[in-house]
Amino acid sequence: MIDLSGKMEGVTHKLPIRIYYEDTDFSGRVYHANYLKFCERGRTDFLRLLQIHQDVLAQLDVPLFFVVRHMDVDFLAPAKMDDVIEVHTKLQLLKGVRFVLEQHIYCQDNLLFKTVVTCAIVNDAGKPTRIDADTKAKFSALV
Amino acid sequence: MIDLSGKMEGVTHKLPIRIYYEDTDFSGRVYHANYLKFCERGRTDFLRLLQIHQDVLAQLDVPLFFVVRHMDVDFLAPAKMDDVIEVHTKLQLLKGVRFVLEQHIYCQDNLLFKTVVTCAIVNDAGKPTRIDADTKAKFSALV
Amino acid sequence: MIDLSGKMEGVTHKLPIRIYYEDTDFSGRVYHANYLKFCERGRTDFLRLLQIHQDVLAQLDVPLFFVVRHMDVDFLAPAKMDDVIEVHTKLQLLKGVRFVLEQHIYCQDNLLFKTVVTCAIVNDAGKPTRIDADTKAKFSALV
Amino acid sequence: MIDLSGKMEGVTHKLPIRIYYEDTDFSGRVYHANYLKFCERGRTDFLRLLQIHQDVLAQLDVPLFFVVRHMDVDFLAPAKMDDVIEVHTKLQLLKGVRFVLEQHIYCQDNLLFKTVVTCAIVNDAGKPTRIDADTKAKFSALV
Repeated sequence: MIDLSGKMEGVTHKLPIRIYYEDTDFSGRVYHANYLKFCERGRTDFLRLLQIHQDVLAQLDVPLFFVVRHMDVDFLAPAKMDDVIEVHTKLQLLKGVRFVLEQHIYCQDNLLFKTVVTCAIVNDAGKPTRIDADTKAKFSALV
Repeated sequence: MIDLSGKMEGVTHKLPIRIYYEDTDFSGRVYHANYLKFCERGRTDFLRLLQIHQDVLAQLDVPLFFVVRHMDVDFLAPAKMDDVIEVHTKLQLLKGVRFVLEQHIYCQDNLLFKTVVTCAIVNDAGKPTRIDADTKAKFSALV
Repeated sequence: MIDLSGKMEGVTHKLPIRIYYEDTDFSGRVYHANYLKFCERGRTDFLRLLQIHQDVLAQLDVPLFFVVRHMDVDFLAPAKMDDVIEVHTKLQLLKGVRFVLEQHIYCQDNLLFKTVVTCAIVNDAGKPTRIDADTKAKFSALV
Repeated sequence: MIDLSGKMEGVTHKLPIRIYYEDTDFSGRVYHANYLKFCERGRTDFLRLLQIHQDVLAQLDVPLFFVVRHMDVDFLAPAKMDDVIEVHTKLQLLKGVRFVLEQHIYCQDNLLFKTVVTCAIVNDAGKPTRIDADTKAKFSALV
């Protein structure tokens, strides 16, 4: 039994994800770009457990969106159909309009994938926007 | 708290699924083809709870795959970012090399999507293959 | 040499599409839901050649989107990595707020997939909206 | 008019790609992970023009697949619905079982995305395999 949004263990968010047909390619393994989707699900639920709701931010008078600016990505070992993987998300740094997350994907004890992700918050014109005090406070508690 | 593979309620399999960024398109709603992915996740976990494992079938000396032959699909109402939808899967008919499933997707009490799906089992050359006695027995208990 | 948006042959729009890694699954063939994506690309470029631009419709004071209401889908034969398929799109019927398209996907002379798609135009609240006179005139010339 | 597989200009492969509904998300822009799909299409067609066919490699007695080991990725500006982007692919380095590509994505003159990708060739057990003399010769001509 799991929580659909995963859980916090200390400062690390952990989200279990099942691998389905749609995630694989004809090599028999998970298609490489899909690990970025899994990480995005992890970040979304990490934010959700911090009470930061992206659908609410998108409905503001000035709509706000989280965007990814940079990723450094290592593909270490492949997942395959029916595997249950776990996305670990940890806030590493908060600085001006940017914040940096470390994300690891495991299948049981095997590290399959790791990335360092730099994100920013932008308005609907794509302009970087300072993180509001409330969100900043929620983040600061985790660094 | 949920089971990652959903649950059987009577003869109906129910799988909760979260809507993420990747599922939406620029209309602000879920991209229409993605409901077929959600249904495929439902079918996979329905089979899993019946102890039918597609990664095992794919590893047989004669590899077997479930394929979709026909779908009749109604898009009734859209899901959006952060929604939790539920895929309901029910076996309707089992006949020769084919079986027919009814799948409904709900968001709370709203029916968003429904489909009738005709599937077959094929070998790795794509040739339809009779459902083995064991799988047939598992299915028959549900019709 | 092709036009990136395909071409009209009589009343039929034809769009060639290459199959890449991302389109396949671990069965070695194209994942079934992806044929719906190919059809949507076909519809988009069919509309584009009729001078109907969906990004422009989405920018109107009352933003308009094409949505799919119903599909009847036959999966006849699979495409695989590196294949070049062709999506054929033909308007079948125009009636009130709805229009019906017939779409076939071929790989060389083999028919892989066919569908009849019922679409509607909705505003950003999801409410069906009558097709404007200009679009209607463009469509009527094709039925 | 374009070639479906793009073209070589000097040592750079250029592939035009249209942005469709499926590529966007509810922020109104292209979903970040999809740029990796576009790059993979670019690499596949770059290899195709070098007469390296991945479906043929996958059919060998010892099936071979290209896999991505590492990516360093910058998301500089977003593409949106109906844009035509162009993926530029250039071989940077060839070393033992690995090769390094530089890939840039433009929309007209704007650089949207850039990445440095380290790839390897593996067999169907995932074991790195030395690049065969023929492929190596094709690559060497480009560095």
